[in-house]
Amino acid sequence: MEARAEALAAAAAVDEARLWSRQMAMAEIGATAAGGVNRAALSDEDRRARALMLEWAFALGFEVATDAIANLYIRRPGRRADAAPVVTGSHLDSQPRGGKFDGAYGVVGGFEALEAIQRAGVETERPIDVVAWTNEEGGRFQPGAMGSAVFAGVLSLEDQLGLADTDGVTLADALTETLASTPGLPQRPFGHPFAAYVEAHIEQGPRLENEGLTIGAVTGIQGLYWYAVEVTGAEAHAGTTPLRTRRDALKAAVAMVSALEELMADESDTVRFTVGRFECHPGSPATVPGRAFFTVDFRHPDPAVIERIRSRIAPTCEAHARGCGVTVRPLMAHAPLTFDADVIAMVEGYAETLGHPVVRLPSGAGHDAGHINHLCPTGMIFVPCERGVSHNEAENATPADLAAGAGTLAACLVDLANREQP
Amino acid sequence: MEARAEALAAAAAVDEARLWSRQMAMAEIGATAAGGVNRAALSDEDRRARALMLEWAFALGFEVATDAIANLYIRRPGRRADAAPVVTGSHLDSQPRGGKFDGAYGVVGGFEALEAIQRAGVETERPIDVVAWTNEEGGRFQPGAMGSAVFAGVLSLEDQLGLADTDGVTLADALTETLASTPGLPQRPFGHPFAAYVEAHIEQGPRLENEGLTIGAVTGIQGLYWYAVEVTGAEAHAGTTPLRTRRDALKAAVAMVSALEELMADESDTVRFTVGRFECHPGSPATVPGRAFFTVDFRHPDPAVIERIRSRIAPTCEAHARGCGVTVRPLMAHAPLTFDADVIAMVEGYAETLGHPVVRLPSGAGHDAGHINHLCPTGMIFVPCERGVSHNEAENATPADLAAGAGTLAACLVDLANREQP
Repeated sequence: MEARAEALAAAAAVDEARLWSRQMAMAEIGATAAGGVNRAALSDEDRRARALMLEWAFALGFEVATDAIANLYIRRPGRRADAAPVVTGSHLDSQPRGGKFDGAYGVVGGFEALEAIQRAGVETERPIDVVAWTNEEGGRFQPGAMGSAVFAGVLSLEDQLGLADTDGVTLADALTETLASTPGLPQRPFGHPFAAYVEAHIEQGPRLENEGLTIGAVTGIQGLYWYAVEVTGAEAHAGTTPLRTRRDALKAAVAMVSALEELMADESDTVRFTVGRFECHPGSPATVPGRAFFTVDFRHPDPAVIERIRSRIAPTCEAHARGCGVTVRPLMAHAPLTFDADVIAMVEGYAETLGHPVVRLPSGAGHDAGHINHLCPTGMIFVPCERGVSHNEAENATPADLAAGAGTLAACLVDLANREQP
Repeated sequence: MEARAEALAAAAAVDEARLWSRQMAMAEIGATAAGGVNRAALSDEDRRARALMLEWAFALGFEVATDAIANLYIRRPGRRADAAPVVTGSHLDSQPRGGKFDGAYGVVGGFEALEAIQRAGVETERPIDVVAWTNEEGGRFQPGAMGSAVFAGVLSLEDQLGLADTDGVTLADALTETLASTPGLPQRPFGHPFAAYVEAHIEQGPRLENEGLTIGAVTGIQGLYWYAVEVTGAEAHAGTTPLRTRRDALKAAVAMVSALEELMADESDTVRFTVGRFECHPGSPATVPGRAFFTVDFRHPDPAVIERIRSRIAPTCEAHARGCGVTVRPLMAHAPLTFDADVIAMVEGYAETLGHPVVRLPSGAGHDAGHINHLCPTGMIFVPCERGVSHNEAENATPADLAAGAGTLAACLVDLANREQP
């Protein structure tokens, strides 16, 4: 078969029912009463999820491996055993009250692509790997996307080993326990070469659904910036202290959030501005708050817009301090990144060929692909999720959309695995 | 001596050093490391404070009594043993991190007035009582001003007995223990007649100090209204959810507080508007809050202004709900009250005669006098406190100001206790 025909044959071999049944089997591990999933990184549930992946891999005769941060690799060998693999995957851990598909789809759907390639009888030059990255969500150990960050050399494993969860269990101990649950797996070094990386994921936003589209050819990941704003005023008696003599930390913080809303105003609705935490102290109805605290989460894909807004965040807060002290502390800064142009075009092209309505769009959320993008040509495939709801037990997707994503992924993997320089 | 001369003789007998020394002795009971006082109602510290009052009362031969909610009465008899007493007093309990003077000054300063009357050799027609009302602060058992409310028939004691503090101790048990610590005291009925009531208190606001005044002739207590505002939106992913499709409970709550600030705007700076509690959930920086909650504390002395603003609070919140649900629940409503015109004039007149710069002013805070005002002619005497700071360990006042207040009080008590119908 010609290379493109082989890619399409692999896509055609994706089995919607088999994929859905595997998604549901995975969702039973850590299932919550409200229909979601609670599968913390390196927990018993995470280990059961890994065991299920290995069971499926062994049944199809695939090769398996791990590394020192327990990233899990499932390989379908290529003709050239020593060639760098084409890799797909995502993560098996979830938010504490997360959904069935965030992360799990990228692993289970990646495995479906691998099985489809196998069942279509397609041979590839390069090996194709499905990876389950450790601790993407960061719910138990921070930061998230830890497995891919350590793999990519963005974080050092040694620096993370002492991290403790809220029960005092260290990452070192949790890793030891998890690695012991999959004894005898070959261990790979961090940063070993990838020929290319394509990650499938639910969109986690409403655009594909709203526009009646099936596939998103992801162009990159928008920039992400976190700030902590601390406002210090003076506690005072609510009944006796005239408003003009107060230094009211709550009202200053409210004025800051209002002013930041104006700063972030955007006709195109591209800016993402969220205040997710907001506290005031001492928190008594009859006491003027002496201290307030809030977080700013700001995201945008365009470096010029980012630069303009970032430079105004602290001055805007200071301009509305109303006599209070204010400190604006950056907590996180991830510049926007762009995926590989050829991979984006390939995702778009195969989606069209397979008859799936497709659009190019940036990712609003961070993903493991963001770290791997530094190492090799990288892209992502989005499929719709119901009402854009994610990080929520109500997260949902349709079997047909998941299968469309897996088919598009299978085609890309075969194509990339047959290129000399993908 | 003529009645007015006797009143002034009593005032002249107030001893600044003795009063200060007693204030400092009282402040040692429950003293905090930061210089404040932690003396919860019906606690061991409260019982020690009562014991100290009784020790001073016995040393001067005064009569003592209590009632079923452990309000403590110290009496200097009058010529007419069966006449209704003229009463002064306040409370001995404090905020958890309270100051030395809030409440304690009204009891200790009242006792100083009683001793001054005694030492001046002034006899009165009516008895004069100093009362320490139980649980004014409401820090351990809610509501506050409980002792005076039960005395005045505003609350029933039976309804309060089952209240539990955060350790699970009931009011009934705490009362039993407190009453057992002062065995053998005669027990008075609730609501027994008072001829008049005058309460001395620190201002708890900055006005007297700012205007260089010594005495406030308190005209009444401003109206006090509490609301709980609950905002219900939808949790969403901070990176992926376009702002236009969000129902962001935090931003709606911020818009409501801003709009309430505009509603409360007041050139005369008489309105008191405080948001003392403000929360949002789930409180994760990367999650759009699905729920927010805040309290409104609104106070004003003028019924017309109160009516206008109260009628606009819920509509103002609803107008800024931004697609979220909002409920505005009244938590507390105390109409403004006016003290007795003769008592106000008497406080003002004696302050002037005694050479203390005086002003008529409303009370921003609630006081036991608010309940007793329903029973008999009532007034209050304010003295300055440093920078208006109260409900705070830094609360402070000067010995001279406290003595000026006790002198004015002594004169009023003698005058009232010699009137047939004060």
